Amino acid sequence: MSEFGKSGIVKRNVERADAKAVERLGRSGVATVHEAQGRTGLMKPYMRPVWPGAAVSGTAVTVLAHPGDNWMLHVAAEMIKPGDVVVVAVTTDNDDGMFGDLLATSFRARGGLGLVIDAGARDARTLAEMKFPVWSKAIHAKGTVKATVGSVNVPIVCAGMLVHPGDAIVADDDGVVVVPRERALAVADAAEAREKNEEAKRARLAAGELGLDLYAMRDPLAKAGLKYID
Amino acid sequence: MSEFGKSGIVKRNVERADAKAVERLGRSGVATVHEAQGRTGLMKPYMRPVWPGAAVSGTAVTVLAHPGDNWMLHVAAEMIKPGDVVVVAVTTDNDDGMFGDLLATSFRARGGLGLVIDAGARDARTLAEMKFPVWSKAIHAKGTVKATVGSVNVPIVCAGMLVHPGDAIVADDDGVVVVPRERALAVADAAEAREKNEEAKRARLAAGELGLDLYAMRDPLAKAGLKYID
Amino acid sequence: MSEFGKSGIVKRNVERADAKAVERLGRSGVATVHEAQGRTGLMKPYMRPVWPGAAVSGTAVTVLAHPGDNWMLHVAAEMIKPGDVVVVAVTTDNDDGMFGDLLATSFRARGGLGLVIDAGARDARTLAEMKFPVWSKAIHAKGTVKATVGSVNVPIVCAGMLVHPGDAIVADDDGVVVVPRERALAVADAAEAREKNEEAKRARLAAGELGLDLYAMRDPLAKAGLKYID
Amino acid sequence: MSEFGKSGIVKRNVERADAKAVERLGRSGVATVHEAQGRTGLMKPYMRPVWPGAAVSGTAVTVLAHPGDNWMLHVAAEMIKPGDVVVVAVTTDNDDGMFGDLLATSFRARGGLGLVIDAGARDARTLAEMKFPVWSKAIHAKGTVKATVGSVNVPIVCAGMLVHPGDAIVADDDGVVVVPRERALAVADAAEAREKNEEAKRARLAAGELGLDLYAMRDPLAKAGLKYID
Amino acid sequence: MSEFGKSGIVKRNVERADAKAVERLGRSGVATVHEAQGRTGLMKPYMRPVWPGAAVSGTAVTVLAHPGDNWMLHVAAEMIKPGDVVVVAVTTDNDDGMFGDLLATSFRARGGLGLVIDAGARDARTLAEMKFPVWSKAIHAKGTVKATVGSVNVPIVCAGMLVHPGDAIVADDDGVVVVPRERALAVADAAEAREKNEEAKRARLAAGELGLDLYAMRDPLAKAGLKYID
Amino acid sequence: MSEFGKSGIVKRNVERADAKAVERLGRSGVATVHEAQGRTGLMKPYMRPVWPGAAVSGTAVTVLAHPGDNWMLHVAAEMIKPGDVVVVAVTTDNDDGMFGDLLATSFRARGGLGLVIDAGARDARTLAEMKFPVWSKAIHAKGTVKATVGSVNVPIVCAGMLVHPGDAIVADDDGVVVVPRERALAVADAAEAREKNEEAKRARLAAGELGLDLYAMRDPLAKAGLKYID
Repeated sequence: MSEFGKSGIVKRNVERADAKAVERLGRSGVATVHEAQGRTGLMKPYMRPVWPGAAVSGTAVTVLAHPGDNWMLHVAAEMIKPGDVVVVAVTTDNDDGMFGDLLATSFRARGGLGLVIDAGARDARTLAEMKFPVWSKAIHAKGTVKATVGSVNVPIVCAGMLVHPGDAIVADDDGVVVVPRERALAVADAAEAREKNEEAKRARLAAGELGLDLYAMRDPLAKAGLKYID
Repeated sequence: MSEFGKSGIVKRNVERADAKAVERLGRSGVATVHEAQGRTGLMKPYMRPVWPGAAVSGTAVTVLAHPGDNWMLHVAAEMIKPGDVVVVAVTTDNDDGMFGDLLATSFRARGGLGLVIDAGARDARTLAEMKFPVWSKAIHAKGTVKATVGSVNVPIVCAGMLVHPGDAIVADDDGVVVVPRERALAVADAAEAREKNEEAKRARLAAGELGLDLYAMRDPLAKAGLKYID
Repeated sequence: MSEFGKSGIVKRNVERADAKAVERLGRSGVATVHEAQGRTGLMKPYMRPVWPGAAVSGTAVTVLAHPGDNWMLHVAAEMIKPGDVVVVAVTTDNDDGMFGDLLATSFRARGGLGLVIDAGARDARTLAEMKFPVWSKAIHAKGTVKATVGSVNVPIVCAGMLVHPGDAIVADDDGVVVVPRERALAVADAAEAREKNEEAKRARLAAGELGLDLYAMRDPLAKAGLKYID
Repeated sequence: MSEFGKSGIVKRNVERADAKAVERLGRSGVATVHEAQGRTGLMKPYMRPVWPGAAVSGTAVTVLAHPGDNWMLHVAAEMIKPGDVVVVAVTTDNDDGMFGDLLATSFRARGGLGLVIDAGARDARTLAEMKFPVWSKAIHAKGTVKATVGSVNVPIVCAGMLVHPGDAIVADDDGVVVVPRERALAVADAAEAREKNEEAKRARLAAGELGLDLYAMRDPLAKAGLKYID
Repeated sequence: MSEFGKSGIVKRNVERADAKAVERLGRSGVATVHEAQGRTGLMKPYMRPVWPGAAVSGTAVTVLAHPGDNWMLHVAAEMIKPGDVVVVAVTTDNDDGMFGDLLATSFRARGGLGLVIDAGARDARTLAEMKFPVWSKAIHAKGTVKATVGSVNVPIVCAGMLVHPGDAIVADDDGVVVVPRERALAVADAAEAREKNEEAKRARLAAGELGLDLYAMRDPLAKAGLKYID
Repeated sequence: MSEFGKSGIVKRNVERADAKAVERLGRSGVATVHEAQGRTGLMKPYMRPVWPGAAVSGTAVTVLAHPGDNWMLHVAAEMIKPGDVVVVAVTTDNDDGMFGDLLATSFRARGGLGLVIDAGARDARTLAEMKFPVWSKAIHAKGTVKATVGSVNVPIVCAGMLVHPGDAIVADDDGVVVVPRERALAVADAAEAREKNEEAKRARLAAGELGLDLYAMRDPLAKAGLKYID
């Protein structure tokens, strides 16, 4: 943990979450994965997909950037391995457009699957046409400088959530969730179990059965003091 | 009004706005209905449809929930009658994902037409596929507990607007408007009159006539001191 | 500059940016134009298109309005010439729906190409169907009065950016950028040069070449103290 | 309730909460009163005193104003009776400085004790010197017009809370709480009982006893699954 | 105006607003000056004094800075003449602490009277002890780099308002107002006339006379449709 | 790190930062400590002291709470050792008043020195009178339930910053900074060195020397392209 928040470091070798588990997490989706790991791991809800329908799961290459400066995203490109998602934190709140279609082209050429950035992105239309998935705090054309070094592959806090390099990242229309590398397999299992369980419930609810009965809530509600009046 | 803001109550019998009037209000749409009732009834503009093109009109089943707790939405499901829209207020600002595809399935099975929630929703993609219309303050996967009782069918303030159970709710791409139950018919009439009136104006404006002339504004503008310079 | 911020004035004769240059700026798009003029001219990122895919370039008719009052938008309609985009500032923060389909019909009939408003717009669905491009701070059905005079074609600050009547306005999915009238041609040239340059870079990045090498960043990064660790 | 949200009405005769109960509520303070009435009645926390240490309790004269227009505050002045607090809602979000030292002078001369406004106030320094207590959403010098009629003494929603004319208003450093007129006495009783109860608890906590023991929480915590580790 | 928004320029010679007029504007205060110049010139209300009671009037040295970079504030120090207030805009939203007690010491040594910054300030306590007046968007300890050149003494937009070098700046508890250099004398006259006028009104209002009568509002209110009910 | 974000755990034994180092950090203050550890460790600037002049340094007892639920603060009280500051994160954004004068009394009785909470606090006036220092996101009287278990002394993200139990916490008018436990001594040394260095600079700046000369910036500015014009 000693590299948390430090500028000036690029870590080359990163152990990544199991690729198969990451793929399975992606199939389960953000809401299910979040529940399956005990309602943890979600980034703040201001993180939204740049284009609707974007969805990705991958392993994190982390970036710590400075406000108005996207230098480290170029450094990160070299660290990308196939299956990675780049996750960018900034040392202070910033909405500048640190990422656009050129970097997307570069990341994809290196095997990068997507981007999660606690700042702005631009070239929104081209990113949609390329189907390169991006979650950001803002869409903003504001250009950036390349003047101050940050870090790549150090632990970061992105949109309120701790991310270590190599963690599993799942993102879709519901937001972004982080699964610690070493828990990826267990959470994938739990998520699939949850999905199976939900399928049965969905059928019963669709048939008109009430959650009150399905989840046996009437008794606890009465004990908690709920009164029905006419 | 004595039940305003009170927790622990479920009111079973609610007089609802006239179904035919509610349907007519839906055809007029939010902006027209808001104007037709004297520019009142609008919720705050942060209430946005979860998927573009969503539109609904119905009668309100109201819910008062606590932050991070969606227990009362399950209680509300039982109170839904065909044609209802569930309207959820929280006792404090909260963005958690209190509503997803399972509750949507349940609400629909009971005849519920949609949801308006001053909090978060999740399973955004599935809600869009189901074409279940939802207006919310946020899209957020954050899961909730079932621990504290609120109320169903008490008067609430949702996104800045007072809602009584049984009021007419109209929602579309322009937001959400509330029409008090007893005014639904009169407002439906006024809205349709307004629409007819607008149709004629639209044609004249499309032909190049100026609003300045159509609405006879030149004189009042001059009296108000407007000066033209070159 | 003496008319900046003044209410009660309509300026009839406005010199406009060169039409051909404005069209070329539109083809380059917001992000490129912003970079091409030295990273200036962008409005704040809260200005978003009312419907996805909206894009426009035109010359500014400026409006200074008062909160909750859209009177000056009717006055502006008369000042529109073919190729214009109306740009609206308000004397204080306000989200009301100052603009809807009737005004869009009128503006289009006069040759207006679009609207940029630091306030709200409504009739979102109809605007999308009409393909009338609008960038706004909010979508809000809230109706407005016609009671207080503002100005048309005075310099304004809209969403943080200074706009003079006749300036070139370019807007797309990435936001809104303003190009001063007298710089339109030079910026159009610079933008096209930049695009050509980017095309070559895109090909090299797509082939897997790193930005680190393409932009010769390795040396400056090392000098700035960046360390690689394993 | 039929006057909720309506413009153009001034209600002269308003039944007010019991003066003695209102005074007692003021002595209990916002946090205690809020708890004593079942954790209801609080306005949103963005309502802050213009000067630190401000505190007031009184009966509500309600005002519905339009954005950027303080005409109705002058109308309200005539409706003030000794012991009143003026509570202002606006038909849409607005931060303009609708209230300053002249209106404070006028309100005080009529017996008004303070102001709660879901908009801006100005002359902050003079208000502090006058010791006229004001809670507002903003401090903003922005001047307003007098052009559009709203209402006085109709039910309003102010900062998210429903207020009827004559309700008890309690405000201090912790914010603003509304007590429905007819509940003022009962809530005053409950608040004082709560205070007495808290006094005893404070002494025990100050002596080092833990809330865990004082409130017998250890058992429920264990049942809820809390685990202690070393 | 051609230098608006341009980086890389320091303008040495700036014509300043008349010193005597600036002093008189300061005595009138922000709210009065804003009204006296036709309700224009106010910065957004998020600009707050770092310590209560701060008040200043002076002539603007303008700074255009980049996010997270306070290099230009050091450049500005050399441009300060006695009676100046430094006004800082950033090319994008940024809250970093660009200014602290060392810069305050330097500015004061050069004759600088205060700072207005659309970003963050730090050393809040020391600034208060020094009685160096600062208005900022945030108090934030975040340190900044010195890497990218901006400009000094070019026109800027600060907190939504256009500022030219040499303009009069008045700031107090009510916020910040800008008076164009060439209007300083006329506005000082108008402000003092307004104050005199207000003094008389204050006395009449304090004596219980209503604004309704003092400003002859009863007739216009009735014409606007206001109804009194019992 | 495996306990990050987990609910249901209380860790009893926590190694704390060196008490003497923590005291020295407090004397240096937030801005200096932040710089001294390489511009890291700051919480977001929305964390503000509940009363002006509050300042504290201590060792962290961390709390993970659920929205609207302050149960874990009572659990935390038992874990406090003299010299501790309690630091509270919530699993989602929440402004409720989780902390007031009773908990402050309890914490102080256990040796607790202060509170940092990414939520609301109440009893603002009493906290000021007690001189119990609190930094919070909001002042809000909203009461909370005691229904869902979180954790005590697990790693948390509070206001955007990672905090481990036992870390050094320094808070004053400039905000809140976290120093990792094992770095406390080194940072205290660096902070004091920095202060000494600043003292000398302050004297030179006070004498009118420019930062441009003191920091030898003229050359780098010229190289970066800065031009002086008249």
